[in-house]
Amino acid sequence: MLAAPLRSELAAVLGGERLIDDPMSLALYASDETPRACTPAAVAFPMSHAEVAALVRIAHREGLPLVPRGAGSGNVGGALPAPGSLVVSFECMQRVLEFRPEDRYIVVEPGVITEEIDRIARSAGLMYAPDPGSGAYCRIGGNLAMNAAGPRCVKYGATRDHVLGLRAVTGDGREIRAGSRTSKYATGYDLTHLLVGSEGTLALITEATLRLVPAMEQIVTLRLCFASNRAACEAVQRVMRQPVLPCALEFMDRRSIEALREYGGAEHLPPGTEAVLMLEADGDADEAPRRLAALEAACRGAGLIEAQSGFSAAEIASLWTARKSLSHAVKKIAPLKINEDVVVPVSRLAELVDAIDALGHRHDLPLVTFGHAGNGNLHVNLMVHPDDAGEMARAAACRRALIETVLALSGSLSGEHGIGSEKRRFVELEIDPASLDLMHQLKAVFDPRGILNPGKKLPDPAGL
Amino acid sequence: MLAAPLRSELAAVLGGERLIDDPMSLALYASDETPRACTPAAVAFPMSHAEVAALVRIAHREGLPLVPRGAGSGNVGGALPAPGSLVVSFECMQRVLEFRPEDRYIVVEPGVITEEIDRIARSAGLMYAPDPGSGAYCRIGGNLAMNAAGPRCVKYGATRDHVLGLRAVTGDGREIRAGSRTSKYATGYDLTHLLVGSEGTLALITEATLRLVPAMEQIVTLRLCFASNRAACEAVQRVMRQPVLPCALEFMDRRSIEALREYGGAEHLPPGTEAVLMLEADGDADEAPRRLAALEAACRGAGLIEAQSGFSAAEIASLWTARKSLSHAVKKIAPLKINEDVVVPVSRLAELVDAIDALGHRHDLPLVTFGHAGNGNLHVNLMVHPDDAGEMARAAACRRALIETVLALSGSLSGEHGIGSEKRRFVELEIDPASLDLMHQLKAVFDPRGILNPGKKLPDPAGL
Repeated sequence: MLAAPLRSELAAVLGGERLIDDPMSLALYASDETPRACTPAAVAFPMSHAEVAALVRIAHREGLPLVPRGAGSGNVGGALPAPGSLVVSFECMQRVLEFRPEDRYIVVEPGVITEEIDRIARSAGLMYAPDPGSGAYCRIGGNLAMNAAGPRCVKYGATRDHVLGLRAVTGDGREIRAGSRTSKYATGYDLTHLLVGSEGTLALITEATLRLVPAMEQIVTLRLCFASNRAACEAVQRVMRQPVLPCALEFMDRRSIEALREYGGAEHLPPGTEAVLMLEADGDADEAPRRLAALEAACRGAGLIEAQSGFSAAEIASLWTARKSLSHAVKKIAPLKINEDVVVPVSRLAELVDAIDALGHRHDLPLVTFGHAGNGNLHVNLMVHPDDAGEMARAAACRRALIETVLALSGSLSGEHGIGSEKRRFVELEIDPASLDLMHQLKAVFDPRGILNPGKKLPDPAGL
Repeated sequence: MLAAPLRSELAAVLGGERLIDDPMSLALYASDETPRACTPAAVAFPMSHAEVAALVRIAHREGLPLVPRGAGSGNVGGALPAPGSLVVSFECMQRVLEFRPEDRYIVVEPGVITEEIDRIARSAGLMYAPDPGSGAYCRIGGNLAMNAAGPRCVKYGATRDHVLGLRAVTGDGREIRAGSRTSKYATGYDLTHLLVGSEGTLALITEATLRLVPAMEQIVTLRLCFASNRAACEAVQRVMRQPVLPCALEFMDRRSIEALREYGGAEHLPPGTEAVLMLEADGDADEAPRRLAALEAACRGAGLIEAQSGFSAAEIASLWTARKSLSHAVKKIAPLKINEDVVVPVSRLAELVDAIDALGHRHDLPLVTFGHAGNGNLHVNLMVHPDDAGEMARAAACRRALIETVLALSGSLSGEHGIGSEKRRFVELEIDPASLDLMHQLKAVFDPRGILNPGKKLPDPAGL
C-alpha cells in the first residue's frame, strides 16, 4: 500500500483515474510468464512521456521502486514487481507518433504491440524485422527492454539492430534523447544501444524510433527431417557457412517433436525423424525459390530423411503455429517449464545439442530443446514438477551445468529473453568483475537511488 | 617532454624501444587530416593488450593525457594530440587473433588496416561491409572510434552495426570485455556499441570481434547524369522508397563535377550534366542485374539526362577512384577544405542540397558537395584560403548556418566522420543539456581523471 499522500500525488499525475491498487487488479500485475509472483503496491498507467517523467520524479524523491511493464509476456521475471513497488504499465501509451516510410522509420510509444508496427510498415512495402514468438501480444517496450528477437533475426538482426533513437526518463527524472532520425549517426555517445536490453534498469523508454526494412515479396518454406539432432545441427552449420542467408532457420529436437505429436503440428513426419529444421528464404518471386534451392543443397548430407517444400500458405501457417506454440506445448510434459535461452557460436551448435542430451540423461530430466539455430540460440526447457523437491534440485544442478557448458563453448547466458530476476545469479559466470563493476557504476549514473526495476539484470554489486 | 623517470617507466613497458620523442618523429604525429597541429610529448607503440593496459595505468596515476591514434586519416581532429600528451599509436597492433568464417566473425587488433579485414573475409566468401574512402590505409581502431562508414553502408550499415564485442582498457586502467562471439546477445549492458563512436574518450579498444557478411557474387554499377542537383536528389528519394536496396548510392553535385573535370574522372559526361549519381546493386549473377534494373526504373524521372550501365571492371574502378579521390581533388579549388559531414533523413535531401546552394551564394564561397546520398549523408566542403581573414569569417558563418539548417531538417552533425576537436562546439546545438550532462557523467565513470583523448567528442562540461 502506498501512503495516502503519495498515492494522491501519483494519482493526480495520472488524471485521477489511472492508478489502481485494489487487490483483484494488483494480482493481475503480480507476475509475468515466470512462475513467481510479488504483489506491487499499485499499478500506474501513464499516457504520455510527461506523465512518465512526473511519476519518476516523485518516485526518485520518495525512493519508490518502479517496475516497468509491457504485456507481461517475458519469461525471466523482467516485469516481476519488487516488494512495495509501483508497476508502471505502458499499456496506455500506444500511439504511433510518426511514420515515415520514405525515411524507413517509425516513432512509437512503448505500449504499441510489436506486430502492429510490422502491419503498419507493410502498408508501405516495409516491415519491422524482429518477430518474437509473442509478437501478436507483446509490446515494443518489452522488446526494447530485453533486446527481443525471433526467427527472422538470423537474417535481419535483433531489436537493438533496429533502433535509431530513443526518448527516455532516467531514474532521477531527467528526460534524455538518444540517437537520431537518420540512418547514420556519429555525434554523441551511443545511449540508444546502451538502453536497449537494459531491462528498464537505466531509464524508462517513452518513445522509440525504429528502423524499417523492405518487406520481401515472397517467402518460401522448407521442412527438413533428420535422423538425429547432430545431423540437423551439422546441416545448420553448413547453411551458415554458405552465402545465402535464410530468413528463418529453426531447430526442434526429438523431445520437441514428441510434444508436437501431442499438441498438433507434427503431422506427416516420416518415420525415424528425430529432429526437424524449418528453413525459410525470402526475396522477390524469382529470388526466393532460388535461394531456397541453395539452402536446401547446403542441408543435404548424412542423416537427412526428407526435405519438403512447396507448402500452401495454410500449411506454412500451421507449421509456424506448431513451432511458436512449442513453448506452451511443452507444458504437457510437466507443469513447470524452466526456460533457458542460451546462445553459442553456430559452429558449436552440434556440441551444445549433444551436451544437452547428456545433461538430460545425467540429471534424469526431460529437456525439450528448440530455437533459432541459425543464430546458435536455443531454448532449453527443463520440465519439472515444482512440488517434487528432488526433481527441483536436479533441475538446479542441470541448469548450472548447462550454463557452464554454454560458456565453455564461447556462448552467452541469454540470446533474446534477457536476464530479469531469474538469471542474474549466473551473470558473474559470464561477465568479468571489472566489466560488471563498470556496469554497476553506469547504473548509478542513470539511476542514483536504484529505483528502476531493482533486482533485475545485474547481480547485486560486490560487497552487498 | 616527459620527465625522465616517467619516460623510463613508459619505455620499460614498451620493451625499451617503442617510445619515441625525437622532434622529427613527433612532428609526424602532431596532426591528422585536420589543418591543425600540436606536438605531443612522446609517441608510444604498444604491441599488445597488456602493454596498453600498463601504459594506461601509469598515465592514470600521473594524469598524463593519452591520445589514441590509428592511421591519422581522420578529418575532425580525433587524433590531434593534446598539449603534453602521449600519443598511443596502434600501428604495431596488427594481429588477426581469430578468424572463424563458420561463425562469420573475425577478432582483430586495432591496428589492422580496414581493407585487410575485408580481404581476409573474402578468402572465405565473406566480407567486412563498412568501406570508408580511406579503407586502403586507415586502421580499424580509428573506424571503431569514429563509427566510420562508406558507400556500402546504405545497404549494410556502419561500423557500429558490425561489432559483436570488444576488449578495452578504461581510463583508470581497468580491463573490460564487452559483447560476445555470438550473433545474438542479451546478457549485460551493451558496452560494445557505447564504445564504438566514443572516439577514444571512454576506453582504448585493444581487440574487436567483427561481424562478417556474405560477399556478393556480382556488383553492377549505374551512372546517372542529371540536369540539376534537385533532380538527382529526388531520384535518390525515389530509390529509397522502393524495396530494392542499392549497395551504393553516391551523389556528386555540380561543383564536384567541376573538380573531377580538373582531376580526372568526369570523362564522357553528357552536356548539361549538373549532378551525378553512382548506384550499385549486388547479388548473385542473376539477382544483381535485375536489382539494378529496378533501381534504374526508380531513378527515371524529370531531369535525368543519361543512365549508363554495363561498365567494364576497369571503368568501374575508375568511376570509384574518381568518387573517392574527390576529397583530395577539391583542394585544387582552394588550399583549405573545411569538411562538413552532415546527415539528414533521406526525404529531406533535396531541401538540404537546395539550402547548401543558397548558403554558398549568400556567403560567397565555393561549396563542393558529394556523399552517401542513400543515407542522407553529405560531405559539404567549404573551400577557403586560410590567410584570407574575410573568407575565413564567411566560412565560419556559413558553417554554422549549414549546421543549423541540417538540424532544422531533423538531421545530425556527423554521419560518419565523428566530432573530434573540430565540431565539438556545435554539439550543444544538437544534443540537449540533460543528455549531454549524462554523457559527461558516463565519461567520468570510464575515465575519472579525464586522461583519454581530452578535448574531443563532447563540449566541455557546463560550468567549465
